[in-house]
Amino acid sequence: MVIVKHTYIADLKHKVGEEVTLHGWVYNKRSSGKIWFLILRDGTGSTQCVVVGGQVPDEVFDLDGVLTQESSVSVTGVVKEEKRAVGGYELEVSDIRVHQIAQNYPISKKDHGTAFLMDNRHLWIRSKRQNAVLKVRAEIIRACRDFLDSNGFVNLDTPIFTANACEGTTTLFETDYFGQKAFLAQSGQLYNEANIMSFGKVYCFGPTFRAEKSKTRRHLTEFWMLEPEMAYCDLDENMEWAEGLICHIVDWALHRCKEQLDSLERDTSQLRKVKKPFARVSYTDAVEILQNSGEGFEWGGDFGGGHETIISDHFDGPVIVHRFPAAIKAFYMKRDPEDERLALGMDFLAPEGYGEMIGGGEREADYDTLLRNLKQHKLSEDAFQWYLDLRKYGTVPHSGFGLGLERTVAWICGLSHLRETIPFPRMIYRLEP
Amino acid sequence: MVIVKHTYIADLKHKVGEEVTLHGWVYNKRSSGKIWFLILRDGTGSTQCVVVGGQVPDEVFDLDGVLTQESSVSVTGVVKEEKRAVGGYELEVSDIRVHQIAQNYPISKKDHGTAFLMDNRHLWIRSKRQNAVLKVRAEIIRACRDFLDSNGFVNLDTPIFTANACEGTTTLFETDYFGQKAFLAQSGQLYNEANIMSFGKVYCFGPTFRAEKSKTRRHLTEFWMLEPEMAYCDLDENMEWAEGLICHIVDWALHRCKEQLDSLERDTSQLRKVKKPFARVSYTDAVEILQNSGEGFEWGGDFGGGHETIISDHFDGPVIVHRFPAAIKAFYMKRDPEDERLALGMDFLAPEGYGEMIGGGEREADYDTLLRNLKQHKLSEDAFQWYLDLRKYGTVPHSGFGLGLERTVAWICGLSHLRETIPFPRMIYRLEP
Repeated sequence: MVIVKHTYIADLKHKVGEEVTLHGWVYNKRSSGKIWFLILRDGTGSTQCVVVGGQVPDEVFDLDGVLTQESSVSVTGVVKEEKRAVGGYELEVSDIRVHQIAQNYPISKKDHGTAFLMDNRHLWIRSKRQNAVLKVRAEIIRACRDFLDSNGFVNLDTPIFTANACEGTTTLFETDYFGQKAFLAQSGQLYNEANIMSFGKVYCFGPTFRAEKSKTRRHLTEFWMLEPEMAYCDLDENMEWAEGLICHIVDWALHRCKEQLDSLERDTSQLRKVKKPFARVSYTDAVEILQNSGEGFEWGGDFGGGHETIISDHFDGPVIVHRFPAAIKAFYMKRDPEDERLALGMDFLAPEGYGEMIGGGEREADYDTLLRNLKQHKLSEDAFQWYLDLRKYGTVPHSGFGLGLERTVAWICGLSHLRETIPFPRMIYRLEP
Repeated sequence: MVIVKHTYIADLKHKVGEEVTLHGWVYNKRSSGKIWFLILRDGTGSTQCVVVGGQVPDEVFDLDGVLTQESSVSVTGVVKEEKRAVGGYELEVSDIRVHQIAQNYPISKKDHGTAFLMDNRHLWIRSKRQNAVLKVRAEIIRACRDFLDSNGFVNLDTPIFTANACEGTTTLFETDYFGQKAFLAQSGQLYNEANIMSFGKVYCFGPTFRAEKSKTRRHLTEFWMLEPEMAYCDLDENMEWAEGLICHIVDWALHRCKEQLDSLERDTSQLRKVKKPFARVSYTDAVEILQNSGEGFEWGGDFGGGHETIISDHFDGPVIVHRFPAAIKAFYMKRDPEDERLALGMDFLAPEGYGEMIGGGEREADYDTLLRNLKQHKLSEDAFQWYLDLRKYGTVPHSGFGLGLERTVAWICGLSHLRETIPFPRMIYRLEP
């Protein structure tokens, strides 16, 4: 059901020869005697509006000296094809209605420091670059949902308020919940595991929270995570779902975000190489790759960003690492039946040094084993009684994973810092605007 | 990109004559001598599996005496058309593989009290009724996104952590943010207003939080809200967007949730009446309707649920109420240029007594007026400086609204309580499971 209220710049190709009124903001302006050009942006694109002396009332022509960057205007004119103009069309202006002349817009074309831009994030998002990144983000969200919806996954929102902390409380945000303590969820996985027993395949996609004290370019305190979970699914199938999702995201972005990726100067040849099947390597073999590359890495440790880059460079493309030491993985991860030291986890590493985008694995489905793991991790049996119940009443092999949205956006757009991948980033020293 | 890993009950219509293996849970069972029937559910539906003595190994036939409700099984057999069976197909069983026999599943077909069911929410969601409601929820989410995506809205996630409280702190959840106070957002609107200046039309769709002490059937502490916001959009156009969205949701549910609405015994004739254009009535005229109906309602007050029902019954269908007393509306709402006492707000009331689903309005676009309103509401000018900036640098007429997802699900499904409309509801005395 499409509702058309007014014409947008993205519609101009269907309006050649017609008179339209566009509503937007002044992006740029240049004059050359009896003619001046207004570059208008309206959220769907930007276009050149040509104002010719004698063809418009004097007061409209005189706006040349008045209009400033970010002034809000409605521009009426006839649409013409013009190959040399940005977007391929232009407007022969007959009238301009001014809503507001913007005075002293603080962000100019010159370079600003990051702190200044972050303080003015509410305005910075208007820039061409930020607009492009956030549009790619919106398209990646659509790609994720399209992939899962088309494959029979049911979107179920898991709770943010939780009574219990499953991985310790040090990185959890806490709130007073009518006299009780509540924590903000870092994952919907445990609830997804309940949901699959009713729906087969599910996903949640919402904000998650981590009180990260680290000030790195890869950490936000508030970030969005997509978490699919599948009943009757083992580790191998889990890897296929992760691979399918990543390929769908990359294809979608290449097809629907061409303009944005171009304007971000993203080298898309690297993205075009992302094809099934991805390389798969066990943790143990990956450690050997690290050691052969001269890294003094010991079996049993967790990979850092540098290690991930060495591993993915080795494969020159996307790679899935699987079967990690159980000791470094969460209590709910299933042990490898062929080697008790290993857990059936898997991480997807993006190429070009972007590292881990996805972490997941097969879940422990056996009641007694899960209970033993809970105790080993010194977690309260009582608090997890409902989660243990899932292994009591018709337990099934099941798996799932989490995809970090902001990391994915950074990779697809080729950005080095997560702060540009979300409209209003939240970090240790950043709660405003 | 569709990935097929195994056959689901929903696929049986394409598999007649083929041997398939279904993976699911025992929903029901009945025997009649040399034949017994297993009703299997797998999240996509349920189907009858026919086990005939002599046609399966004895140990499979003997499972009749062993399988219990919610036991997890993989059932192999040939698909047959069978009009009398639920769903129209059945399986001629050749093999059953048992994953787990469920012992003493606590939820039986008999009536349980609400507190018991809520304590066992992680299992209760497996019931046919809860499965149906939550599938309708997932489809309504898709309908919302489909409508907005097709109409050029850009999905931008607004922050949950906010430094400031725009409508007082009494109903806000608070957290310690590295030594600073942060509040959990009740709305993404103010950020949406920044985003439209870059994107034209945007929406956010995420969890919102309200520390409601009220224990009513219409309140959750954590609920999901869809919030579209449009630049260059006045109150009338805002009402058209709300109307279009509601019609799209109702159509979508009628087409895609037929099975679920049937199983919930929803009288869909009431939903079929939801058609454009909706009745529109000013607050002032609505007050007259209340007074004529014998309610002693005074101009200037806020409508309660009972008032909303009288107003919507008067129109025997959906209705939009607009132009409320400014005194009962938020500081950011634009005053009616034709009557300073009024604010350009609008509420959509669902029929059948379901009341307010949508609240919104045109926003104040003028810097000086907004500043005056802020001061009248005793809000900090400093904290809202970024929001005031939006009126300084190319302000435009703009509008938006919020749709409560859980209320919409309750209305479409015909439910009297919000607790069934979200997988794991959070209320004043309910933080688990």
